[in-house]
Amino acid sequence: MSSGIGRRRWAIAEGYIPAQSTGDTRQLESHETICLLNAGDGDARIEVMVYFADREPAGPYRFNVQARRTAHLRFNDFEHPMRIPLDTDFASVIESDRPIVVQHTRLDSRQAALALLSTIAYADDA
Amino acid sequence: MSSGIGRRRWAIAEGYIPAQSTGDTRQLESHETICLLNAGDGDARIEVMVYFADREPAGPYRFNVQARRTAHLRFNDFEHPMRIPLDTDFASVIESDRPIVVQHTRLDSRQAALALLSTIAYADDA
Amino acid sequence: MSSGIGRRRWAIAEGYIPAQSTGDTRQLESHETICLLNAGDGDARIEVMVYFADREPAGPYRFNVQARRTAHLRFNDFEHPMRIPLDTDFASVIESDRPIVVQHTRLDSRQAALALLSTIAYADDA
Amino acid sequence: MSSGIGRRRWAIAEGYIPAQSTGDTRQLESHETICLLNAGDGDARIEVMVYFADREPAGPYRFNVQARRTAHLRFNDFEHPMRIPLDTDFASVIESDRPIVVQHTRLDSRQAALALLSTIAYADDA
Repeated sequence: MSSGIGRRRWAIAEGYIPAQSTGDTRQLESHETICLLNAGDGDARIEVMVYFADREPAGPYRFNVQARRTAHLRFNDFEHPMRIPLDTDFASVIESDRPIVVQHTRLDSRQAALALLSTIAYADDA
Repeated sequence: MSSGIGRRRWAIAEGYIPAQSTGDTRQLESHETICLLNAGDGDARIEVMVYFADREPAGPYRFNVQARRTAHLRFNDFEHPMRIPLDTDFASVIESDRPIVVQHTRLDSRQAALALLSTIAYADDA
Repeated sequence: MSSGIGRRRWAIAEGYIPAQSTGDTRQLESHETICLLNAGDGDARIEVMVYFADREPAGPYRFNVQARRTAHLRFNDFEHPMRIPLDTDFASVIESDRPIVVQHTRLDSRQAALALLSTIAYADDA
Repeated sequence: MSSGIGRRRWAIAEGYIPAQSTGDTRQLESHETICLLNAGDGDARIEVMVYFADREPAGPYRFNVQARRTAHLRFNDFEHPMRIPLDTDFASVIESDRPIVVQHTRLDSRQAALALLSTIAYADDA
């Protein structure tokens, strides 16, 4: 079994939750997601800071990802300390106390046919 | 001719096989793919571990990629030790005994128009 | 709070602003975007050079991104020293005096359903 | 002006030219592209090797990218030493005698609405 893989500090410069959806299920609702993989043998404590164009950052949003688990978290569902506004540009920094891998995915169903984007996040050297 | 290029350990934090497809051919069936390139002069033995949100990982799934070949593998087709459930979040770690390059691609044809995503996977330093 | 993250020199080899849009709002107008994240505690001065297939580069285009802010800039909106021509292949190099993270996103609404692409840009070692 | 940026050896593990298109213009024809940026002050000589699932690689395909220029090349247009077959999985390795940046983009217009994917290619350490 794989021991840990990844880094402890990641960033995603893109972020946007479309306000509309044509899908009527949770799967097809427009969503902005960070996918976290903790392939190691210890639980990871994760903090996400969210950055905006014209106000101070929000956060930290705190999550645990258990050992040998993945968590696909929707910014749509973030609640504390505040919800992320829709139709608003943002960015994020993800810090973990153990190595993780972070990928960014959006499903946009504003129009009749969904669109997808995804990229491995930026892993910091420091 | 190019000798080997790449790394031996890769990760993809995103994974999801849509349960529906509008396409009626294998090409247009919704699929989640890992593209493996072995540009070196020796065959590569590859093991894939699949991670979930709420259960222990599945695998290893074993594959060979011959020297100077690419293999585009669909998670939809993984069978042993178990099939990957549909409409379920997962992630994966790919290990090879020789340098390879890994890219992650999804074709989603749940709706009338297909959507695509792709990213080079995360290459571990270790 | 996070201190700076990222690099000071980035490149995006893809660039293309579709000349048509089916969307009638700014959100759904076809656009080509660079998302910049300055997670550090000092303002960043940024210069973008734009490269073409058959003429000398244009620029530098100059921007400031304040401390702890993100800026999602559309090449569509670049004006000085010149506008970026539509339906034309280009590429870009982004230089900053402080560490930033750069991501490239396109929304293409030439057809009735939009399409998206995104990738973290190439971060230079130098 | 920016001096060179990038690496000299890149790989793309994904490759696929859809055989069908609904678009009737070159812009909307399904295509698989490598975007090359040579931001340096000398011309770059580039060789692309194309790898398949079940046969020996094809190439090298040779290109020049002038100093301070970008070239967005379609695999659809590759002719010598052979054309790239449609609806066929492939992968590629790009080598340059000067630093370049490589990005991989597909436009798929098999269905009524186009789909896009893009990722910065894998840059080799060696």
